[in-house]
Amino acid sequence: MNQPIGIFDSGVGGLTVTKEVMRQLPDEDIVYFGDMARVPYGNKSRDAIIRFSRQIYRFLRTQDVKAIVIACNTASAIALEVLRDEVDIPMIGVIRPGAVAAAEMTRNKHIGIIGTQTTIRSRIYNEYLREIDPEIMIVSKACPLFVPLVEEGLLEDRVTEDIASRYLHEMKEYEIDALILGCTHYPLLSHTIQRVMGEDVRLVNPAFETAKSLKELLAENNLLKTDGSPARYRYYVSDGKDRFARFADQTLNCMVSVDAVHEINIEEY
Amino acid sequence: MNQPIGIFDSGVGGLTVTKEVMRQLPDEDIVYFGDMARVPYGNKSRDAIIRFSRQIYRFLRTQDVKAIVIACNTASAIALEVLRDEVDIPMIGVIRPGAVAAAEMTRNKHIGIIGTQTTIRSRIYNEYLREIDPEIMIVSKACPLFVPLVEEGLLEDRVTEDIASRYLHEMKEYEIDALILGCTHYPLLSHTIQRVMGEDVRLVNPAFETAKSLKELLAENNLLKTDGSPARYRYYVSDGKDRFARFADQTLNCMVSVDAVHEINIEEY
Repeated sequence: MNQPIGIFDSGVGGLTVTKEVMRQLPDEDIVYFGDMARVPYGNKSRDAIIRFSRQIYRFLRTQDVKAIVIACNTASAIALEVLRDEVDIPMIGVIRPGAVAAAEMTRNKHIGIIGTQTTIRSRIYNEYLREIDPEIMIVSKACPLFVPLVEEGLLEDRVTEDIASRYLHEMKEYEIDALILGCTHYPLLSHTIQRVMGEDVRLVNPAFETAKSLKELLAENNLLKTDGSPARYRYYVSDGKDRFARFADQTLNCMVSVDAVHEINIEEY
Repeated sequence: MNQPIGIFDSGVGGLTVTKEVMRQLPDEDIVYFGDMARVPYGNKSRDAIIRFSRQIYRFLRTQDVKAIVIACNTASAIALEVLRDEVDIPMIGVIRPGAVAAAEMTRNKHIGIIGTQTTIRSRIYNEYLREIDPEIMIVSKACPLFVPLVEEGLLEDRVTEDIASRYLHEMKEYEIDALILGCTHYPLLSHTIQRVMGEDVRLVNPAFETAKSLKELLAENNLLKTDGSPARYRYYVSDGKDRFARFADQTLNCMVSVDAVHEINIEEY
């Protein structure tokens, strides 16, 4: 099936997942959509996130995608189950792969989850983890300042460390040994988070596991690309083309020219 | 003219301006709109902000408003001049009133401006200030972490003080004696900002001056309310009704019941 994979996020964060998909599925074509006009999703309501995700799904279908990855934790937490019932192509999010990876990594069965307010409030990581192993103890915490700190470039800074210590205090008390980075921006803070938590805690970045699940899903459905042509990547955003191109260029370590990024009005879909 | 005044903002911040309008024009009816589904505006493009503002204008016209206050600095900076040419009712923003107030307050003619990235980049405060007095020296600085810090409730905190010191460092070097708080969230940080800048620097909150300009504008156009009925307030949001009601209740120091807040889909306008 030589159609592209659709990947979407509220903004640039989903590029960390995209990078992992490019690494594990180097032949596949990708259409990425970043909802820069309405970013962030993490403090918006369930209804808003479902409405936004439906519009993005309709847009991605115009691009003839064969499968969709919701690369945003908040949208995965809220919209995946709803949309899956409405659509006729395979769709995965980042939550279940992250939960599976954490359950494999923990030894003492104490797992921590950090994410946006909406993701944490949804308790969906908890649901999946309990399904996998009801004995797992879970501590979760919303970290609303992490995204703005990353966007301000304060990846290693005394302020970021101070805020991280406050957010993660409880995690340390409960002696978790695996911590799910439940927001695509958080892996950029992994040095600081690791320092605060100590070397014995494993940080779980759902991106790797998500790309692995996608590969399996495509194989099961006979959807892997077969024509041997080089991979083609297209990027669409609802705003901020130039800012997106700069960030994409850094994240993907390859030349993403502004010309490869297209701006659309997502509200029309 | 017994129609309401329309006031809009990207979210809850414009309520600080609304409060001042209620104080200076206690008889007037008000329809407030907060664009909670697409907040914040401060890091979005010119085109997006103009599109959002046009939709909000069309919505407010369905509420039969007689005049509009753009209570958001970013939307005032970007959309006011454009919309003013397209509409047939009086419209004001918060930028010119803020510039007028600062020019009156400064003694050494060194003025500082802080705001969102989009507001600072627009250089519109600079334009207005130079029109008023070309001798004024201006130092401006975007402070993108201030809004998330306010929303996280860290109004007086060592982290907020640390970040404020970094942002305001240059302002102190240039010995400004008046500082425009060019974002509706910033007055909530005024204690911290005052401490960092020192007691000799006057903080300019454009809300007071904006309400004063509105009063003059309504009087000039014979639009003041005359029927003597008690003021009525209605609130509309594009998302997050409950969160808005809680914040409104605090900011306006009066009971704003959730029932008085209505959610609409702004994309339909």
